[in-house]
Amino acid sequence: MHGLADDFVAELCEWIAIPSIGADPAHHADVARSAEWLATALRRDGWPTVEVWDTGPALPAVYACWPAEDPAAPVVLVYGHHDVQPVDPVEHWQHPPFEAVVRGEELFGRGASDDKGQVAMHLLGLRAHLAATGQTAPSVTLKLLVEGEEESGSPHIATLLAEHRTKLGADLVVFTDTPLFDRSAPTVCTGQRGHITATITMTSGNSDLHSGRFGGGVPNAAIALARLVAAVHDEQGRIAIPGFYDDVREPSALEREHFARLPFDEAAWLAGPADGVTAATGEAGWTTLERTWVRPTAEITGIHGGYTGPGVKTIVPRQASTALTCRLVPDQQLDRVQELIRRFVAEHTPPGVTAEVVFHGSGVPPYAVDIDHPATLAVRDALAAAFDQEVLFSRTGGSGPAALLHAWLDVPVVYFGATLPDDRIHAPNERVVLPVLLRGAEALARLWRLLPDRLRTPAAEPAGITAELGLAGSARPEPGREQEANRA
Amino acid sequence: MHGLADDFVAELCEWIAIPSIGADPAHHADVARSAEWLATALRRDGWPTVEVWDTGPALPAVYACWPAEDPAAPVVLVYGHHDVQPVDPVEHWQHPPFEAVVRGEELFGRGASDDKGQVAMHLLGLRAHLAATGQTAPSVTLKLLVEGEEESGSPHIATLLAEHRTKLGADLVVFTDTPLFDRSAPTVCTGQRGHITATITMTSGNSDLHSGRFGGGVPNAAIALARLVAAVHDEQGRIAIPGFYDDVREPSALEREHFARLPFDEAAWLAGPADGVTAATGEAGWTTLERTWVRPTAEITGIHGGYTGPGVKTIVPRQASTALTCRLVPDQQLDRVQELIRRFVAEHTPPGVTAEVVFHGSGVPPYAVDIDHPATLAVRDALAAAFDQEVLFSRTGGSGPAALLHAWLDVPVVYFGATLPDDRIHAPNERVVLPVLLRGAEALARLWRLLPDRLRTPAAEPAGITAELGLAGSARPEPGREQEANRA
Ligand SMILES: [Zn+2]
Ligand SMILES: [Zn+2]
Repeated sequence: MHGLADDFVAELCEWIAIPSIGADPAHHADVARSAEWLATALRRDGWPTVEVWDTGPALPAVYACWPAEDPAAPVVLVYGHHDVQPVDPVEHWQHPPFEAVVRGEELFGRGASDDKGQVAMHLLGLRAHLAATGQTAPSVTLKLLVEGEEESGSPHIATLLAEHRTKLGADLVVFTDTPLFDRSAPTVCTGQRGHITATITMTSGNSDLHSGRFGGGVPNAAIALARLVAAVHDEQGRIAIPGFYDDVREPSALEREHFARLPFDEAAWLAGPADGVTAATGEAGWTTLERTWVRPTAEITGIHGGYTGPGVKTIVPRQASTALTCRLVPDQQLDRVQELIRRFVAEHTPPGVTAEVVFHGSGVPPYAVDIDHPATLAVRDALAAAFDQEVLFSRTGGSGPAALLHAWLDVPVVYFGATLPDDRIHAPNERVVLPVLLRGAEALARLWRLLPDRLRTPAAEPAGITAELGLAGSARPEPGREQEANRA
Repeated sequence: MHGLADDFVAELCEWIAIPSIGADPAHHADVARSAEWLATALRRDGWPTVEVWDTGPALPAVYACWPAEDPAAPVVLVYGHHDVQPVDPVEHWQHPPFEAVVRGEELFGRGASDDKGQVAMHLLGLRAHLAATGQTAPSVTLKLLVEGEEESGSPHIATLLAEHRTKLGADLVVFTDTPLFDRSAPTVCTGQRGHITATITMTSGNSDLHSGRFGGGVPNAAIALARLVAAVHDEQGRIAIPGFYDDVREPSALEREHFARLPFDEAAWLAGPADGVTAATGEAGWTTLERTWVRPTAEITGIHGGYTGPGVKTIVPRQASTALTCRLVPDQQLDRVQELIRRFVAEHTPPGVTAEVVFHGSGVPPYAVDIDHPATLAVRDALAAAFDQEVLFSRTGGSGPAALLHAWLDVPVVYFGATLPDDRIHAPNERVVLPVLLRGAEALARLWRLLPDRLRTPAAEPAGITAELGLAGSARPEPGREQEANRA
């Protein structure tokens, strides 16, 4: 592995040097160069099929396929992305973001963790797999889809999936764009939340009116909007939009048990990642990890109305608006949540006020894996062997296209990632911890070996894991329930 | 009166030509010129004492005094202002704002109504008074204080009053900066609301946090602020700040009776002055006129938090702020209301959130006249005679320095105005209706004649008015109560 690792670091540095900022049109040529870089690297590694999909409307994506020798072997599609976040504020970087440097165990640079590092991990993982097995082809048929628009919300992923559906056909998707829980606690991510954002605008008249002459006798759009926002949550922090929780699938007892066993230091989390928040708050009856992982939210991301410049304007404002972002969990449906929000706003629009609700796109659906699925357990076992310790289940509260991959390809999606939550992705001084990433590659090398057997004997596994973790069989979710869940 | 009127119109046009926009430092020299213009006009009229107070920090104010022949005659101080509002948007004016033109009964120009027209009305009124009585001095000792900062909120009026308290000493203040209710319904204004504005800022952390990673587990400053705002009113539109109504003096039954008799067309008011508001709303149990005249309010004049630019930012915002403007009525006290607001905000600040309350200045106190005071009744009778019709009581919902004049000089203040609510003051195409203003001057000519008698026999009047209006004596507020009220 060590010779492989040296090349790997040099390669990753070279790839990071291409500033593939997809959100910035000035860098779209770099996104194309980044795709070409990856295609060249894959060809060098011997992947028989390598394609750069650059016919638009999506920014260039890379597709590759390396068939197993056994035509009956499972087909696995790996998802990742090669576009990166912008680098502002660039002055906060200790090294130039596109001149990667290694300092001890860390490699610094934009994309080092999210997601070039993890995609490179897959290249290394396959090399290690081939070296360890002595095979000339992987134990599973491997396909790779590395898109160039993830940081822009994957606006064309559905187009790509529709256009190349046959080519992308697989028995399993391995989704690689999430972190482990902690260096000390490697985990299998079991789900991401979805999200949907509505801009709600309330209007009470055609002009701002004088607060002396009219105040008290006419509706105030800003007050009407604030009353709507205040009605979104009840006193227990639960979302009071009628029907909002109807389709919410609660996490299994096993998952909650795992979450509770994770080394989560709330005070350190508040002071560190949360940058000085003084109290963890939220929905009563759930822990902070649960609130941010498996519970839906309704956040006001922005609000504006009336005069907000220097000094005071004594007006009754005619208009106010707010952006409401809901994070969603399985099995909440985007269209149903839209409908519930529309109805809620209509019911909370007072006389003399009109309300408009505009959704930003159709949103991103939530996704959760079947924790009893043999592929999930294979990921867990591969990580456990590579990290040489017990591997628990975790989740992430953010969102990604896992549900779309599932919906379009109609196969299970599992998460496999080996980065860390404190990698400062999307922020200055992004880094990746190399020994962790290398263990991830090691786990992948094992995973491809495990999968052919595991995917042949799905029934044998569930009892195994619950017994191994010392949990009662009753904690296991009913298979029927989970089956349904994957269709969220 | 007609010869006088011609000169009057020419003079007013000349004065309007001086763009005395006090809020604009580029026009401060014009404010000084405007003061000089008025001083010159007063001297030409024969006022024995005319002074321009231009030693700062206030913009130049004009003081004048014309003693009555009878040293025992009442001393009346007239208050007005000669600064004017800015003229933006200037392209909406049909004539240049500082080139006054007469079209039929209307004189157009910035300040035609507010307040140069009304101050000029006083000059004309005194000329008419002297002409009608054949006297060489008014029947009361007249003093005039015309300030240059009213449109900027009279920031130095207390300084002027403190500095010149002895000189300004009077038995009565006539406050001239309010309109009649309507051309068809001349009224005596009986009060103005005060106001106080607090900027309330809520902070939940040092950084905006990602709504995926942190959402649901940390406080959201915008939601906390919206919940505070929503708590300000109850379902009946009453202000739910504990203690807020403790000192609110309800209008007398007589005043409510008068308000109800005024020709107020709510639908026309909504469509016209309120520019298309579709429903009059507010505190349950009160009419629109009452809600805007004699009831206190709590309006959100501006609110801002999080990201409000184009598109969406999926953040949990760290901070949000709002400006809360309360219109106040007698006998609410500025400092007590400040304290109540501070306490309310503290009680509605959730865990993990800090709140800061900053007041913009100390606010403007409310004021209401004693409707039984002989001077109030003299104003009513003078207007009734000039307009040849019954004159009812009205109020205005806006604010002015009447309470300060009362507090510093320790004498009653009565309102005398002869402009109209639809004069478009503070807006393009400000105008004054000349026949109405001339009747106002006529009423003033009478008022100065009435006052020496009326102020000598205060006890005789109250029974008179209530009887005349056909109202039961019980509707009269207790004198003790009213006495106290004037100290609000
Ligand atoms: Zn990513
Ligand atoms: Zn004015």
